[in-house]
Amino acid sequence: MTQVIAIDDSQKPALAPLIMPNRLLLGPGPSNAHPDVLQAMSKPPVGHLDPAFLTLMDEIQALLRYTWQTENQLTIAVSGTGTAAMEATIANAVEPGDVVLVGVAGYFGNRLVDMAGRYGGDVRVITKPWGQVFRLEELREAMETHRPAILALVHAETSTGARQPLEGVGDLCREFDCLLLVDTVTSLGGVPIFLDRWGIDLAYSCSQKGLGCSPGASPFTMSDRAMKKLQQRSAKVANWYLDMLLLGKYWGSDRVYHHTAPIELYYGLREALRLIAAEGLDNCWQRHQQNVEYLWDRLEEIGLKLHVDREFRLPTLTTVCIPDGADGKAIARQLLLEHNIEVGGGLGELAGKVWRVGLMGFNSRPESVDRLIAALQKVLP
Amino acid sequence: MTQVIAIDDSQKPALAPLIMPNRLLLGPGPSNAHPDVLQAMSKPPVGHLDPAFLTLMDEIQALLRYTWQTENQLTIAVSGTGTAAMEATIANAVEPGDVVLVGVAGYFGNRLVDMAGRYGGDVRVITKPWGQVFRLEELREAMETHRPAILALVHAETSTGARQPLEGVGDLCREFDCLLLVDTVTSLGGVPIFLDRWGIDLAYSCSQKGLGCSPGASPFTMSDRAMKKLQQRSAKVANWYLDMLLLGKYWGSDRVYHHTAPIELYYGLREALRLIAAEGLDNCWQRHQQNVEYLWDRLEEIGLKLHVDREFRLPTLTTVCIPDGADGKAIARQLLLEHNIEVGGGLGELAGKVWRVGLMGFNSRPESVDRLIAALQKVLP
Repeated sequence: MTQVIAIDDSQKPALAPLIMPNRLLLGPGPSNAHPDVLQAMSKPPVGHLDPAFLTLMDEIQALLRYTWQTENQLTIAVSGTGTAAMEATIANAVEPGDVVLVGVAGYFGNRLVDMAGRYGGDVRVITKPWGQVFRLEELREAMETHRPAILALVHAETSTGARQPLEGVGDLCREFDCLLLVDTVTSLGGVPIFLDRWGIDLAYSCSQKGLGCSPGASPFTMSDRAMKKLQQRSAKVANWYLDMLLLGKYWGSDRVYHHTAPIELYYGLREALRLIAAEGLDNCWQRHQQNVEYLWDRLEEIGLKLHVDREFRLPTLTTVCIPDGADGKAIARQLLLEHNIEVGGGLGELAGKVWRVGLMGFNSRPESVDRLIAALQKVLP
Repeated sequence: MTQVIAIDDSQKPALAPLIMPNRLLLGPGPSNAHPDVLQAMSKPPVGHLDPAFLTLMDEIQALLRYTWQTENQLTIAVSGTGTAAMEATIANAVEPGDVVLVGVAGYFGNRLVDMAGRYGGDVRVITKPWGQVFRLEELREAMETHRPAILALVHAETSTGARQPLEGVGDLCREFDCLLLVDTVTSLGGVPIFLDRWGIDLAYSCSQKGLGCSPGASPFTMSDRAMKKLQQRSAKVANWYLDMLLLGKYWGSDRVYHHTAPIELYYGLREALRLIAAEGLDNCWQRHQQNVEYLWDRLEEIGLKLHVDREFRLPTLTTVCIPDGADGKAIARQLLLEHNIEVGGGLGELAGKVWRVGLMGFNSRPESVDRLIAALQKVLP
């Protein structure tokens, strides 16, 4: 090794060890991870083919199947944040020319449109004002018009706080020989979902919301119907990192090396899912519902209005109307910097009109509500 | 919320809190993260648009520029493992029809070929036996034959332990008006690299090798030349998650939301890079070189042969020939289960022929060598 070039030290940063503020994260995510999860993540790493790690991968798969209420063989965690798992469903389901029908009633519906187009989908869109949901008859009409290969819906629209009912949609999709793809980013772990009984073929989520984990390892699942389409496609999946034919060989019994898994994040995810199983999924869902109803009551008590009709409100995320004349951004900033509480702002159609308040995973506790309300009472005009 | 379906508890896993073995990871990666890095990762999360987090992102960018010796504006961490960062370079550089010339002398060269094909590249390949490297004249000849838009080389072939010299290749690429894309997964932080002075246009790495961090947040950089090609392309990047036109707006001054970053991994990465800057890049490189030379000496002392010519051996990863008649897999398993030391097996052409021994990041210490040699002396036939 002949090394003659000198290192340029002129731009070398001289930094102190990391210090971060201690926030209560009540925005649209990330939420605060459960302390046991952070503890698990600080354990020393093993290799991604270590027998101990392979056991852990099997445990994650079993726990995810329970949490989603599915028996799908291919139920794994993608090595990226929720958007990567979202892209994994699109990349593996959409073949160039496929008609993809997307229900857009918020920001994440639009993201599905953009992604499906990048994978060559012939994308058709039905829309609703942000905060509303599609009725089954409306979906049937659209199916008759567009005859899609894939129907993509957002179960829990993180940008609006609305819950799209899914009962009956799976049957509709079977009637039209179509795959059902569902965004469960803000529902998994916090909102009732029955993947198999609702006939959902592809779903994705994230780790840092209802699961109470740190972001970076994201649930993905596909049914045998979806797998059959994947196996029959003529061209390779146009995404190597997220190709489920390759990933399935690592997560399945073959254990073929694909990429180095984010070891510590999987430790955390396993622990987060284990805590949900120990609590019991029904208890976990009920806890989210009870705490959010407490939040709604308290918000209304202090004179705030909620954006979504009660019937379709998510237990995980609430959109709160910014009162006339109030500076929503300034108030959120005050909550963050003076009270160490994060809430989210509005996106798209709801920009400047709502705050987004999440009560998810570990943060779905009455104390979170009390602390937020006390702070709001100080900062509201 | 009318909830009538009962939860299926029959498949509910009942698991104890996580217990993992304490391994010394001397394979091709992951390596053991520095204890301070694991400590940083267990700090409570903030939001991905928190002012404290935006500052941390700026610090990561500055630290990465120093570690790669580049002034590239777009120098970021991708929210995935090294393979995601690899795919990011291909997705953003390759347009359908582009001639992409790939130097293949190992497993990761082949991965580049597969990926570039998926993005529509007209892929041409030059090969070398695994463990060897390309000479500049050979590259010139291939450039004259293929006239590529992109030349892709692997600086540090993790599958062979060979270091591809890069001096002069950037000039060659400019002569042929071609972008130079380089895999630095097993070199960043451990092997001398001067991105700007060597004229490298796109590079990627991982966090869990030379940087001594946990896997899951992966360095990516692109030059102004590469950015110009990206800005001029006619079609969207065929990958939403890794689209640098979108990611650049989050990491740049616009701070437009793209996806939720893996918060705790970024804490760890910032700390890992800070430790390298505090040590000094030249000291860090020298430490890797000194410890690997100590490893080579000790391995030869106990009668083992090394696969790569000394001139081209990596300081981070050494391929050790499995002695005739020895069962390489069984020995590696014994090292793991009886001595808690992980070494890697061979891939592809080198399957069954070599072990891969990494001395990377925090694990590049004389004690790692001593512990490995002592264990090898017990398990070798």
